[in-house]
Amino acid sequence: MKPVTIYDIAKEAGVSVATVSRVLNNSAPVKHETRDKIKDLIQKYQFQPNALARSLLKKETGTIGIIFPDITNPFFPMLLAGLEEEARSKGYHFFLCDTVSTMGQMEDQYERESQYISILMEKQVDGIIMVGGRINLARPSKELTTEVAETAKRVPVLLINGQLPGTDLNRIYADERLGAELATQHLIDLGHRRIAFAGGYRFMSNSVQRIQGFRKTMERNGLAVRPEWTLVTGYSADSGKEAFETLHSMGELPTAVFCANDQIAIGMLKAARKAGLKVPEDLSLVGFDDIPYASYSIPELTTVSLRSYEVGRSALDLLHRMIGKEKVSKRTVVKPELIVRESTAPPRC
Amino acid sequence: MKPVTIYDIAKEAGVSVATVSRVLNNSAPVKHETRDKIKDLIQKYQFQPNALARSLLKKETGTIGIIFPDITNPFFPMLLAGLEEEARSKGYHFFLCDTVSTMGQMEDQYERESQYISILMEKQVDGIIMVGGRINLARPSKELTTEVAETAKRVPVLLINGQLPGTDLNRIYADERLGAELATQHLIDLGHRRIAFAGGYRFMSNSVQRIQGFRKTMERNGLAVRPEWTLVTGYSADSGKEAFETLHSMGELPTAVFCANDQIAIGMLKAARKAGLKVPEDLSLVGFDDIPYASYSIPELTTVSLRSYEVGRSALDLLHRMIGKEKVSKRTVVKPELIVRESTAPPRC
Repeated sequence: MKPVTIYDIAKEAGVSVATVSRVLNNSAPVKHETRDKIKDLIQKYQFQPNALARSLLKKETGTIGIIFPDITNPFFPMLLAGLEEEARSKGYHFFLCDTVSTMGQMEDQYERESQYISILMEKQVDGIIMVGGRINLARPSKELTTEVAETAKRVPVLLINGQLPGTDLNRIYADERLGAELATQHLIDLGHRRIAFAGGYRFMSNSVQRIQGFRKTMERNGLAVRPEWTLVTGYSADSGKEAFETLHSMGELPTAVFCANDQIAIGMLKAARKAGLKVPEDLSLVGFDDIPYASYSIPELTTVSLRSYEVGRSALDLLHRMIGKEKVSKRTVVKPELIVRESTAPPRC
Repeated sequence: MKPVTIYDIAKEAGVSVATVSRVLNNSAPVKHETRDKIKDLIQKYQFQPNALARSLLKKETGTIGIIFPDITNPFFPMLLAGLEEEARSKGYHFFLCDTVSTMGQMEDQYERESQYISILMEKQVDGIIMVGGRINLARPSKELTTEVAETAKRVPVLLINGQLPGTDLNRIYADERLGAELATQHLIDLGHRRIAFAGGYRFMSNSVQRIQGFRKTMERNGLAVRPEWTLVTGYSADSGKEAFETLHSMGELPTAVFCANDQIAIGMLKAARKAGLKVPEDLSLVGFDDIPYASYSIPELTTVSLRSYEVGRSALDLLHRMIGKEKVSKRTVVKPELIVRESTAPPRC
C-alpha cells in the first residue's frame, strides 16, 4: 500500500497543503470546521507526517540535547523535571544523554561527553544544555573547553551550574558559594564554634566554591578553620561515614559539620548514630542540595536548596529564547535557600 | 564556504565513500592506517555526517523512545541506568519521554502517553519501550490498549513491568506477586502473626499483584488477613504516615507491616518513631523496590529488589533483537530478591 502523504490529505479535504501543515504544526489558526475535517482524515489514514523530512526543510528538529552526568544521582531528577516541564510547554523533546559509565572513570566521562556533543550535532538538535561533568572541573583542559566553545558557534549551548573558564558561554547557575555561607552562618548563629567541613572533590569547581563559602564565613566570624577538620572526601554516603570515622578517631569532635551534599550528611548521620551520638543534640549536621531524602531521614536534614526545579525551568526558557535568536543575558544567577529542619540545634557545651 | 561532504573526505583520503561510511558507522572493519587517515580528515574539516539524511536512506535512526511516568520517582533511575548502559553498548540513543505533569492528573498522563507515541512514530524511532502509566492499569480502556497494539504492528514495542490485557505484546517484568510472597513469608518466618499491608492503588495491576501475594501467603500459613489492616493508601511517604496513623488509631497495632513500596515504609517509620515506637523492636517493616534510600535510612530497610538495573539491561537487549527481527520470547520474567536489612526482627510478644 502506498503511504498516505500530506498531499493526499489536502486533496481529500479540499484544502491546500499549507492548511494541513498549519493544523499539523499548530502554527497558525485554521477554521474550526476545516481543522476537524483534516483531523478526521489524519485519524482515518493514521497519517504520520514525516518529522525527519520536515526538519530537513525547516532546519529545526524541535529536539534539545541534555548532557548530564548520572541519572542515579538524586540531585538530577528535580532539575530534569523542571527542564522537562518547561520543554513540554514549549513543544520541545529531549535527547537525554547520561555520560557516566558503570566503571565511573572520569576520563571516560569526558570522552563520552565529546561523543554526545558530536551525536547531538549530527542529529541537528536545536540546542544543547550541559550539566555537570567537565563544566564542573576546577581546571578543565584547553581541549575540553575549546570543543564546547566551537560547538556554541554552531548551535545554542547553555551551561547549568558550571562554567568553562576563558569562554563567554551562556550560563545559568545557583550561587553555591552563597549557599555555603548560609549553611555555615546558620551553624554559627546557633552558637557553634567548632565546625568541620566534609565532602566534595578539590578538582571540582562547585566543591571548591562550597569550601570557599565555608571558609569565608568562618573567617568573617573570627573562627578558625582547622585543616584536619576540612575533609574533602567525595560525595557518597559512604564517604560521609568515612569522614565521620576520621573525625571520631581524632579524639576531639566538632559540635557541627557542614556537609558538601545531603548524601554526605546521611552517611555521617548513620556513622554518628552507630558511635552512640545523637543528632542534633551531640552533633549538628547541615546538608546541601535538598534531595528528596533530606526530608525523609530521621531527623530530617537541615540543608541548602539550589532550587533545581526552578533552575531547570529557567534554563529551558533561556535556551528557547537563544534558539529564537533573542538577546538574553550571558549569566543568570539563582539564589539558593537555607532550609532549616531537624538536624541542627545549639551545641551542648 | 561549501560544506564538506562524505565524497570530499573519500576523495582526499583516496578511498571509496563506502570505506568512509564504514568508519563513520563503525559498521565493518577498516585497516588501521586507513581508519586513522579518515579520522584525521574528519577532525580537520570538523565533518558532521548528516544523520537525518542518512536515516532517511537507511530507514534506521539509532534512536529508541522510552515512555515512562515520572523521573522524580526514585524507582526509575536504576531502571533507566540499566537501559542506558546497554543502549550505549549497542550504539542506540534515547528519547526519554516523561509523562507525568506537575498537576499529577491521571487522565493527563495517558493523554500524554498518546502524544508521545505519536511523536516517537513521527520521529521514526527504531523501537519503543513503555514503563508504568497505562500498562500498570488493572483495567485499561480498550482505546488505550488498541493504540499500543496498533503501534506495535509498525515498530517493535516492549512493555516493562506491565501489560495490556487481551494483547500479545512483548513483555519483560519482575514477578511482583512472588516478591510480595517473599516479603510476607519473611515476616511469618520471624514469628509475626498480626501483619498489616499498606500502600498501593487498587486501580494499578502491580499493586493488586502485591496485595494478592500478601494475601496468598497469609492464607497458606493459616493467618487471617484483616480487612481493616489492608490499607491501600497510595505510594508516597506521606501516605505511609497516614497509614500508620490509621493503624495507630484503631487501638491494637500489628507487629509487622508489609509496605507496598519503600517510600510507604519510610513514611511509616517516621510516624512510628514520632508515636514512640521502635523499629524493628515494636514494629517490623518490609519495603518494596529497594530504592537507594532503603539503605540510607536508620534502621536500613528490609525490602524486595525487583532488580531494576538488570531488567533495564535485559529490556534493551530484547528490544535490540526485536529491531533486528530476531525471534524472542514474548515474556521474560525476572525473579525478585528479598534483601534483609535492619527493619525486621522477631515480634516482642
